[in-house]
Amino acid sequence: MTPGAGNGPSGLFISFEGIDGSGKSTQSRLLAEKYDGALHTREPGGSAGAEEIRALLLTGDPDRWSAETEILLFTAARRDHLEKTIQPALDAGRIVICDRFADSTRVYQGATRGDLRATVDTLHGLMIGREPDLTFIIDMDPETALTRGLARKSGEDRFEDMGLAFQETLRHGFLSLAHAHPDRCILIDGNRDTAAIAAEIAAHVADRARHLADAF
Amino acid sequence: MTPGAGNGPSGLFISFEGIDGSGKSTQSRLLAEKYDGALHTREPGGSAGAEEIRALLLTGDPDRWSAETEILLFTAARRDHLEKTIQPALDAGRIVICDRFADSTRVYQGATRGDLRATVDTLHGLMIGREPDLTFIIDMDPETALTRGLARKSGEDRFEDMGLAFQETLRHGFLSLAHAHPDRCILIDGNRDTAAIAAEIAAHVADRARHLADAF
Repeated sequence: MTPGAGNGPSGLFISFEGIDGSGKSTQSRLLAEKYDGALHTREPGGSAGAEEIRALLLTGDPDRWSAETEILLFTAARRDHLEKTIQPALDAGRIVICDRFADSTRVYQGATRGDLRATVDTLHGLMIGREPDLTFIIDMDPETALTRGLARKSGEDRFEDMGLAFQETLRHGFLSLAHAHPDRCILIDGNRDTAAIAAEIAAHVADRARHLADAF
Repeated sequence: MTPGAGNGPSGLFISFEGIDGSGKSTQSRLLAEKYDGALHTREPGGSAGAEEIRALLLTGDPDRWSAETEILLFTAARRDHLEKTIQPALDAGRIVICDRFADSTRVYQGATRGDLRATVDTLHGLMIGREPDLTFIIDMDPETALTRGLARKSGEDRFEDMGLAFQETLRHGFLSLAHAHPDRCILIDGNRDTAAIAAEIAAHVADRARHLADAF
């Protein structure tokens, strides 16, 4: 079954958000495997140009960029990703499942530089202007998430180095986004086994697809 | 003499604009040589991070970026350049002479994608928010400029490949900026010998420095 299939020209755009180690990458992949023709992608990156920008953000000394420059680079990568990868797939009626999207910029920048939260939103409205149809925010105990994250440490996870209190701030950032956007955000309890979480997510997607089909 | 010296905490920020081959790089260097401690810089680039972004913009296939992504990358580079190079020099009371700044983005993007002109201005207000104190716009016959430009072709000058009509559009873009911002823009006739142009520019700078000194 392809949820986007009955929706005319546009597919279904689903993002996964949460702190590192929350299981969002695993869950987003499991969901993509359930649907023929689904596109699984992730940020930063997801298109050739965006991957070049990702390299600027995640290699070398990350502190060489100010928060403002970083937001501009993330937005440039997102714009390229949206144009080259996400939108063409949606236009072809595909389901697009993205591991992180604009909410990550809102939460991570909001946590590190709260004064830039409004700037992130203005920039998003100006240059991106697109939200996912559905966002799964996987909530989980930061201590457990941090342990998981550190276990598979890739050297790219500088936010994990910032400790438990910071992860707690990020968690609350995601919870507050879920609360602010109940139309598209679904909060998922990540403190359960993988299969139970995957089943709940799949049920939500099937439900949303039914509603979309009914609207046509 | 250092024009910025009497101005307390801030030096003098001067940009040079014009089409390729107009002589702005030569003139900006000649002006910088006149003042001890002047900083000569150029865009895109001018700081370590901005040079990394410059490489994304000027190497590889330039058509891999949309106009929107390109504007975001130019703005990211400009933000880094301003933070790391321009502002610290101004704070130290130095004169900063920059070969191209935000006006180039306004004119080049305005010429290629007129519908983005307002977006460029909004983005500039949001993420840069600084104009030069003085901008020399070197105006010259596009045919002569194009011949000069092609003679030293570096492979980075894709706009020169777009021909005379396009150079004429760019020229009018710069003329219209000069007209819109008479407070900071000085139009210079570039169809003269190098020494005469340099003398006129130096006289304008000395005049501006005297006015600034009188204000303190």
